[in-house]
Amino acid sequence: MSKCFSYSSLHSFAQQVFVKIGCTIDDAKTASDSLLSADLRGVDSHGIARLTGYVRLWEVRRVNTKPEIRIVYETPSTAVVTGDSGLGLVVAPFAMQLAIAKAHTCGSGWVSVKNSNHFGIAGRYAMMALQHDMIGIAMTNASALVAPTFSAERLLGTNPIAVAVPAGTETPFVADFATSVVSKGKLEILQRKGLEAPEGWTQTKEGTSNTDAKSLEKGGALLPLGGNKDHGSYKGYALGAVVDIFSGILSGANYATWVPPFTSLLPVPENMPGEGIGHFLGAMRIDAFRSAAAFKKDMDQWIRRVKSARTTEGQSRVYIPGEIEKETEAERMTGGIPLADSVVADLRNIAVKFSMEIPQGIN
Amino acid sequence: MSKCFSYSSLHSFAQQVFVKIGCTIDDAKTASDSLLSADLRGVDSHGIARLTGYVRLWEVRRVNTKPEIRIVYETPSTAVVTGDSGLGLVVAPFAMQLAIAKAHTCGSGWVSVKNSNHFGIAGRYAMMALQHDMIGIAMTNASALVAPTFSAERLLGTNPIAVAVPAGTETPFVADFATSVVSKGKLEILQRKGLEAPEGWTQTKEGTSNTDAKSLEKGGALLPLGGNKDHGSYKGYALGAVVDIFSGILSGANYATWVPPFTSLLPVPENMPGEGIGHFLGAMRIDAFRSAAAFKKDMDQWIRRVKSARTTEGQSRVYIPGEIEKETEAERMTGGIPLADSVVADLRNIAVKFSMEIPQGIN
Repeated sequence: MSKCFSYSSLHSFAQQVFVKIGCTIDDAKTASDSLLSADLRGVDSHGIARLTGYVRLWEVRRVNTKPEIRIVYETPSTAVVTGDSGLGLVVAPFAMQLAIAKAHTCGSGWVSVKNSNHFGIAGRYAMMALQHDMIGIAMTNASALVAPTFSAERLLGTNPIAVAVPAGTETPFVADFATSVVSKGKLEILQRKGLEAPEGWTQTKEGTSNTDAKSLEKGGALLPLGGNKDHGSYKGYALGAVVDIFSGILSGANYATWVPPFTSLLPVPENMPGEGIGHFLGAMRIDAFRSAAAFKKDMDQWIRRVKSARTTEGQSRVYIPGEIEKETEAERMTGGIPLADSVVADLRNIAVKFSMEIPQGIN
Repeated sequence: MSKCFSYSSLHSFAQQVFVKIGCTIDDAKTASDSLLSADLRGVDSHGIARLTGYVRLWEVRRVNTKPEIRIVYETPSTAVVTGDSGLGLVVAPFAMQLAIAKAHTCGSGWVSVKNSNHFGIAGRYAMMALQHDMIGIAMTNASALVAPTFSAERLLGTNPIAVAVPAGTETPFVADFATSVVSKGKLEILQRKGLEAPEGWTQTKEGTSNTDAKSLEKGGALLPLGGNKDHGSYKGYALGAVVDIFSGILSGANYATWVPPFTSLLPVPENMPGEGIGHFLGAMRIDAFRSAAAFKKDMDQWIRRVKSARTTEGQSRVYIPGEIEKETEAERMTGGIPLADSVVADLRNIAVKFSMEIPQGIN
């Protein structure tokens, strides 16, 4: 069951909560913008459903809500930023703005971030580049849930990659995906419905491919994009590794099995080699290569060519990456954001904890 | 059947052939270095087996062996280069050297290339960054063989991505893979053996998943990494699209269905919107982020952690991307490069055509 809430009511609620846990009003607004962008785009697992998780991280003092986010080192086109244990929802926009500023002055900007926390959806930060006629890139590492090809152990996070590309009159291209076959959220949906997972999503603790939607709880692992060796799982593994290296090692954050978990109840790994979790943000100014107008004309032609392709049986459209999310955003901005009962209950608990009004549903 | 040849004999042969078709001695050496690196690393489909293909492209005047490769536009960290219809084997090293030079001066360098031809293996160019303590990135687009999710038509090439990362005492990390489930070369191997392809590699002309190793000849398509929607094919599709955009659209080369084919017998697409095929080369200087020594220490720890993982049943190792290729390179440098009889026959035909000595096998 679910109930719909207006964007503004959920945004206002989240912003108040972030202020309650110690954020400045500016940071609380930024964090809410980041968080709610996931709900708007239909990535429900990464939106306000996680608000309670951020509160719990603050309660166990794993999030600093008054961080001194700062540049540790920089060159004209690169930088390392420390998030000072701040919310990734606030740290990532800071780093992306820095990447964009560097792209303005020298063509491109690349910022690796350490000592941050989970940042919600990667696409949000990649998309910040679009209004500047830039290509935006965002990645983050995360605690290990994915087993590389031939590994029985989880060694990498679901480590997402997002790339946003401006178009002319067409909808911008926004790819945003985990480098595993599926995210943990998709397994949780099946669990709630009591269904099995398709073959090729997970493996057991011993490393045998299985169909148990509770594999992760039983010590199993998600499989890298590709699924098995014959279908290119070493490619998904390599992609997840690149995200880990760019986000974790280039910045001096943690990496591989040492990335701390989002869940406050889980222990932090021993002997962590770095600080917090890592992100990687990039921006390339289109007219640092060729005229933005000419580029966008070609992007429009690319998009139209793909959209006009003959479809496979039973399908009516070939989608451009980001197209479904854009349509969902338009629908939810007017029709409201549906929240599962369990999420509403979580928000009610937060409201009680901080003596706040709970958001009112619109249906 | 196959016969082994020394690296130096094949390199010398290729270099002479490139001179015969009009390359300068320097360019012929560069092209041979690029080409043979594929044979050394075990990517046999992209090595000297393609020499005859390059000769045929020259015969139909689709390759300019005296190109004026030049920078069309640049900023401190970016550039567009035109290959002037030159061999990709020569154009790509030029562009990668430019990316490296920019990374020396301002932290990173990103070069999009137009009007080039096929460049062999992407990993070769990414690896040029390693000796400078830089991360190297290389991509190229190619003629359309891959059908995006829900498309019955081929819209994208197998568009590979390579990322090379320096390590300390461990072997460098070198990922290099097509963004389709498999490359065309893997289907050809099955064809020669009269075998079927595994489910999830290809689809028919109508867009139905099939197991026919001759699907491409019958108008079918390769599937994007992930295979089908339930297993994340939209992620492989998005990756292939990003390569196409960075290589083709950012430079002003061709893209999507307009990328000209490598095979000289196939017609060039009508109404091409750009020039030739496109590449994208990038370099990031490690110490533009943090000390290269500290980075490499962490990379070594990352590599050792992954290699020490408990393996799935029947497997003895978890491989680091590039590890198998490095081992193959060492073996072939001493033991020779095995060439299939059909490839030897092609080399013999080239030798006759240009009145040259054919390379002598070493066993």
